[in-house]
Amino acid sequence: MTNGALHPADPLAAAVSITATERPLSDDMLRRMDGYWRAANYLSVGQIYLRSNPMLDEPLAIKHVKARLLGHWGTTPGLNMLYVHLNRVIVERELDMIAIIGPGHGGPGLVANTYLEGSYTERYPAIERSRGGMDRLFRQFSWPGGIPSHVAPETPGSIHEGGELGYSLAHAFGAVFDNPDVIVACVVGDGEAETGALATSWHSNKFLNPARDGAVLPILHLNGFKIANPTVLARIGRDELTDLLRGYGYEPHFVEGDVPADVHQLLAATLDTVLDRIAAIQSAARTDGEVGARPRWPMIVLRTPKGWTGPKVVDGKPVEGTWRAHQVPIADFNDPEHLRQLEAWLRSYRPDELFDEGGKFREEFAALAPTGHRRMGSNPHANGGELMKPLSLPDFRDYAVVQSEPGAVKAAATATLGGYLRDVMALNADAANFRLFGPDETASNRLQAVYEVTGKAWMAETEANDTDLSCDGRVMEVLSEHLCQGWLEGYLLTGRHGLFSCYEAFVHIVDSMFNQHAKWLKVTRTIPWRKPIASLNYLLTSHVWRQDHNGLSHQDPGFLDHVASKKADVVRIYLPPDANCLLSVADHCLRSRNYVNVIVAGKQPEANWLSIDDAVRHCTAGAGVWEWASDEGEPDVVMACAGDVPTLETMAAVMLLRDYVPDIRIRVVNVVDLMVLQPQSEHPHGLDERAFDALFTTDKPVIFAFHGYPALIHKLTYRRTNHHNIHVRGYKDEGTTTTPFDMVVLNDLDRYRLALDAIERIPRLRDRLPDETARYWALIERHKLHVYEEGDDLPEIRDWQWRR
Amino acid sequence: MTNGALHPADPLAAAVSITATERPLSDDMLRRMDGYWRAANYLSVGQIYLRSNPMLDEPLAIKHVKARLLGHWGTTPGLNMLYVHLNRVIVERELDMIAIIGPGHGGPGLVANTYLEGSYTERYPAIERSRGGMDRLFRQFSWPGGIPSHVAPETPGSIHEGGELGYSLAHAFGAVFDNPDVIVACVVGDGEAETGALATSWHSNKFLNPARDGAVLPILHLNGFKIANPTVLARIGRDELTDLLRGYGYEPHFVEGDVPADVHQLLAATLDTVLDRIAAIQSAARTDGEVGARPRWPMIVLRTPKGWTGPKVVDGKPVEGTWRAHQVPIADFNDPEHLRQLEAWLRSYRPDELFDEGGKFREEFAALAPTGHRRMGSNPHANGGELMKPLSLPDFRDYAVVQSEPGAVKAAATATLGGYLRDVMALNADAANFRLFGPDETASNRLQAVYEVTGKAWMAETEANDTDLSCDGRVMEVLSEHLCQGWLEGYLLTGRHGLFSCYEAFVHIVDSMFNQHAKWLKVTRTIPWRKPIASLNYLLTSHVWRQDHNGLSHQDPGFLDHVASKKADVVRIYLPPDANCLLSVADHCLRSRNYVNVIVAGKQPEANWLSIDDAVRHCTAGAGVWEWASDEGEPDVVMACAGDVPTLETMAAVMLLRDYVPDIRIRVVNVVDLMVLQPQSEHPHGLDERAFDALFTTDKPVIFAFHGYPALIHKLTYRRTNHHNIHVRGYKDEGTTTTPFDMVVLNDLDRYRLALDAIERIPRLRDRLPDETARYWALIERHKLHVYEEGDDLPEIRDWQWRR
Repeated sequence: MTNGALHPADPLAAAVSITATERPLSDDMLRRMDGYWRAANYLSVGQIYLRSNPMLDEPLAIKHVKARLLGHWGTTPGLNMLYVHLNRVIVERELDMIAIIGPGHGGPGLVANTYLEGSYTERYPAIERSRGGMDRLFRQFSWPGGIPSHVAPETPGSIHEGGELGYSLAHAFGAVFDNPDVIVACVVGDGEAETGALATSWHSNKFLNPARDGAVLPILHLNGFKIANPTVLARIGRDELTDLLRGYGYEPHFVEGDVPADVHQLLAATLDTVLDRIAAIQSAARTDGEVGARPRWPMIVLRTPKGWTGPKVVDGKPVEGTWRAHQVPIADFNDPEHLRQLEAWLRSYRPDELFDEGGKFREEFAALAPTGHRRMGSNPHANGGELMKPLSLPDFRDYAVVQSEPGAVKAAATATLGGYLRDVMALNADAANFRLFGPDETASNRLQAVYEVTGKAWMAETEANDTDLSCDGRVMEVLSEHLCQGWLEGYLLTGRHGLFSCYEAFVHIVDSMFNQHAKWLKVTRTIPWRKPIASLNYLLTSHVWRQDHNGLSHQDPGFLDHVASKKADVVRIYLPPDANCLLSVADHCLRSRNYVNVIVAGKQPEANWLSIDDAVRHCTAGAGVWEWASDEGEPDVVMACAGDVPTLETMAAVMLLRDYVPDIRIRVVNVVDLMVLQPQSEHPHGLDERAFDALFTTDKPVIFAFHGYPALIHKLTYRRTNHHNIHVRGYKDEGTTTTPFDMVVLNDLDRYRLALDAIERIPRLRDRLPDETARYWALIERHKLHVYEEGDDLPEIRDWQWRR
Repeated sequence: MTNGALHPADPLAAAVSITATERPLSDDMLRRMDGYWRAANYLSVGQIYLRSNPMLDEPLAIKHVKARLLGHWGTTPGLNMLYVHLNRVIVERELDMIAIIGPGHGGPGLVANTYLEGSYTERYPAIERSRGGMDRLFRQFSWPGGIPSHVAPETPGSIHEGGELGYSLAHAFGAVFDNPDVIVACVVGDGEAETGALATSWHSNKFLNPARDGAVLPILHLNGFKIANPTVLARIGRDELTDLLRGYGYEPHFVEGDVPADVHQLLAATLDTVLDRIAAIQSAARTDGEVGARPRWPMIVLRTPKGWTGPKVVDGKPVEGTWRAHQVPIADFNDPEHLRQLEAWLRSYRPDELFDEGGKFREEFAALAPTGHRRMGSNPHANGGELMKPLSLPDFRDYAVVQSEPGAVKAAATATLGGYLRDVMALNADAANFRLFGPDETASNRLQAVYEVTGKAWMAETEANDTDLSCDGRVMEVLSEHLCQGWLEGYLLTGRHGLFSCYEAFVHIVDSMFNQHAKWLKVTRTIPWRKPIASLNYLLTSHVWRQDHNGLSHQDPGFLDHVASKKADVVRIYLPPDANCLLSVADHCLRSRNYVNVIVAGKQPEANWLSIDDAVRHCTAGAGVWEWASDEGEPDVVMACAGDVPTLETMAAVMLLRDYVPDIRIRVVNVVDLMVLQPQSEHPHGLDERAFDALFTTDKPVIFAFHGYPALIHKLTYRRTNHHNIHVRGYKDEGTTTTPFDMVVLNDLDRYRLALDAIERIPRLRDRLPDETARYWALIERHKLHVYEEGDDLPEIRDWQWRR
């Protein structure tokens, strides 16, 4: 080492000063914990750099070093230190704890620690706790066919990928809701802390009840730097940071230093303090029998150097404690000095002290780890499927809209669902494993029946006029789609169930979180030890066609396109046309596992079309001919529809056609499960060619009224035989504050346009077109302002005249 | 009024106590300002409720009330009070001020105020300042063909829609960067404050330089309630809120009350205090000549009752000061009591005192408003196109990669662009109207040449080892895509220029912000007085094919799908295949107006294909045959490509085909401008049928290698003649931490797969298939681990053998 000094060979020797008032670790414990930490650091550096010679039996040569160096060292030593200290308190206090690692780049550290404690080898027996296992452990890291560079689904003990920053703290709170005995140690990176999602996640403590829920211990890791910049929170001074964290409702405890022995003692003392405080808060809330004021929860601010214990200087430039330590601090091993520097770095951890000849972690250190399920890498809460119990579900048929004939009864679909969800909530109240999530919209979305059996979780101040707030509620409302999504993900990943109801347009706010969760699910399907978890269920309502009152900013059906672009084995999209179909779909989704289910359904009273038994049959098939609305035999035109408003307009168009063009044969096809449209090769729900052609014919015009952007239907059906005859109407970004009916008119989805579309496409009818067009335009003009003049919602068809 | 008392008929009579130490408003000024406020409130209620009888000449009858009641009253009176007080300080201090209204629901208030000050009538002459004008003003609100219910592009003085909550404060900071004389009064709703984007936006003050930039005055409006819930920030107590805001770096000044006269005095005194403080901060920074420590900026917390001055009780339930005041406090006018209550409410503002017989706002009140461009509804900064100056752009040809022949020279596209952007930055340094935005990735994305002429804006603490930080920098880096996007939008909307470089996968974080900006642009195109602004330019790099080292979470090309679903007249997507094409595209985008341009380009050294002159021709056409790589005449197969990695793989596939199947005729078509693929009826860039067929033939197989999800190409081309022959390869969600080459292999986009695709689709070659398949699989296996074994990036083709 000529151009860069490493940390002192014996870090304990440097323990000259300590600001902690206590030194809770005995000298022997300190020595062993530091050894454990050094072992984790050694294994982390080994993973990043070595392809062979894992125990440095030979002097390090270029052939031992990976040709391609990937991984992030900067955050890793801090994570490793935390892990060994969390192990101590888990053992001493018999805690049920998992860790969520916001800086997911620190993959090597988590792999190293779960390897040291034995969890890793139990999941991956080839990675033995031996010299050979260590060799494979190092080589597999960031290697084709090996493991990812980040904390990932493959990592035991993780429910959080951390590649896309921002969601750690929301996941942590989701994980502890209704998990009173669990503590999540949540490491928040100071880079991650700049994201929007994380910045608002701190407020999750206003929704956590210490009597009923577990605890989150946030650990803000002030590593100081991102890829290329300092972090904001590391550069605002301790006073301002303290204000900020107190303003978020926490009591920050600072652990700062760069002398390992001092930081060990200070961190240990601080962990004891904050865990005592958590225990006291919980005890007070649980023994009093009633929840008092929201407690000020403790948290830790850990300020250690980025790339701590790594090379201090490389090529004359400072590395430890700077952004240069973010990824791989030493590269380019054509420079022999770099090779010497890497070897010195590795040897500075004194691996011989830590591992025996066979590569086994020496017992004096290994004994520090918890055992069995107390190991964070083996805690079943981090593999929620192991703990998941199916929901008790009422018979959804009991909530059905009863009708004499199709269209005769109106029902608000989401309000109907609300009754069912109320009873789902009630039936599972004892199991405490079902919650509803939504940004301030549960009642706006007409699901308020759930308030008959539970309230909205709320631990902040209350006032006399507040309604339905409760510290024990299981409806989660906060005006942040990020929090709703993040909490729900955490709740699901730890083995529970839920549903997120959202304004359709604003669910785009979590497009990226959906992406990451879908990716997580995709990968876990290939990992045998990851047990299936409950699906993530979206109920998108207040949808594009009924945001006429809020205007263009609230009108966007594009989440369907976003979801449909994802891996077919993970995503499902349902467009129930009425309340009964919504019941059937919702029941199905709540029973399903490992999917993302998107349900789109309106909240306004609309005609119900199917009896509950017909609804079940229809939803099970995913799509079908509505024979009661269709003529027998080969049709002149197929009137297809997907979505509640398109279905209504299609049915009204059919009425118009029956009145004005009695000599045509119409077939009505309704699609509930959008994925049936795709070829079977693309999606498991895809109809086979024969079934598709049986619905849509091979040569007749299809007028397809669709809830979303028309192109999505084309994207799903372009390989189908009759695709060139499929003419789709849907949303085309036309809208403003106007009437519900004008919304469909503006986008050419109205009944008159659909009827004209049919006439235009049936050759023998084309000569009638000019007359009909003029007639329909007059009708449209009359109806457009109807709602403003008369107060009614839509041009009404009072009697649906079905005939066979 | 039997079941609900309104505010006292004379609000001044209730001014019995005041906590302000000062009473800066004289009695007369107080009376006139309160009158102005009452006028705005009257006009707001009128817009929400009345379809006629605007001046209450007749007793209110049901026929005067809109049948459909839309709008949000709750936030409006607070916004109206702020507006009249901001008017006072604008006049007294000759401020150049605009307002950004986070609670965009308060549309009626902003319309009312811009009407009262005259701005509205200047933009919309039919809405005269008269009885007839008032009638139209009321009727048009939330009426088909009228105006939206929110603050919208149609609203004079607005650069912020506010329908989707969360972006007000980021827009405000963007608006004042490089606008030293501008102050943005930014109202943050307490609902909005729960969103992620807003929660991190407070930290924008670490990037604002008081010497060079203007000032933002945040006004947190603690209205107390969302649709159905209390807000978090209204229920954490004043101490905790103070800590939070101080932690964010502000000095909060509280204005609280429900007695109008008291609040008037307190708000006036507070505004004087905070504006004095802003002036002092700016003066110190500007006269010292050097910027000192980051100042603690003042802000206001305004706590007034939700729905203030509206009905206190309706149907026996409290309304004012509760969530019930959020939208329309009185509805259902079949109840005659409700009609009486509404009339009493309207008359409580004493409209006769405020408007003369002709409906004109009386001069004693009207004279309070600023005049000309000082009116917030007429300030040109809120119609940025009025102020926008085109960028001075260097000749991009000067930065071109010079090559002897296609493929002979490698260049990192974004690094090449970096040189050009450096000089764009330098050339416009005096104009101070160009900034780069990116989440900590400018250097990671290889644009670091810009640091030769400017730094990264940074006003937080610095340390010795920091590099490129500067209080005067115009590169904006923060680890929040929301902030990057929001700042850039604010910067563009006030007439400046910029570019946002982002990791491709993580730009999904701002999907929803992109939506809202695209919607804004769409609407402004129909508003004659809205002048065109610079386009919002995305540079998506670190893209899906080269995130092999970061793994699956970093791999996602779906933003293209998201963008392509939007209105064609607003969005453009460019996939330059090499560095020279990137230069040409970037120059074009920086000159364009009113679009969202998405450019995808890699940061790794890759072959350059086109000379700069050819690049210009190619990019101008949008797509073309690469004749130097194609055989003459009718081809057997079209090898099409879009994107840099797909182009490389396609060219390598062509080499393979030339070697192994010499008797086929190949045509290479490259697509830069993705929108050319669409029919002209769908997008103005769409090729006409003849031109499309001339490229892709009408009957030959097309092997299309695409950067993103294959379905997007099908979606764009499904109406084309030869669509059934277009076989697309692209990303299919397969990826992990692996090699660049394995990434294309995993997704069937590699050169061998493309060559096999061609062979498979040319009937006379099919008998060769089994042999070739085996041969290629062997090659793939050999190359897959190449990068790990050898350190090289991709299987190299050392000599491109082009022939005609």
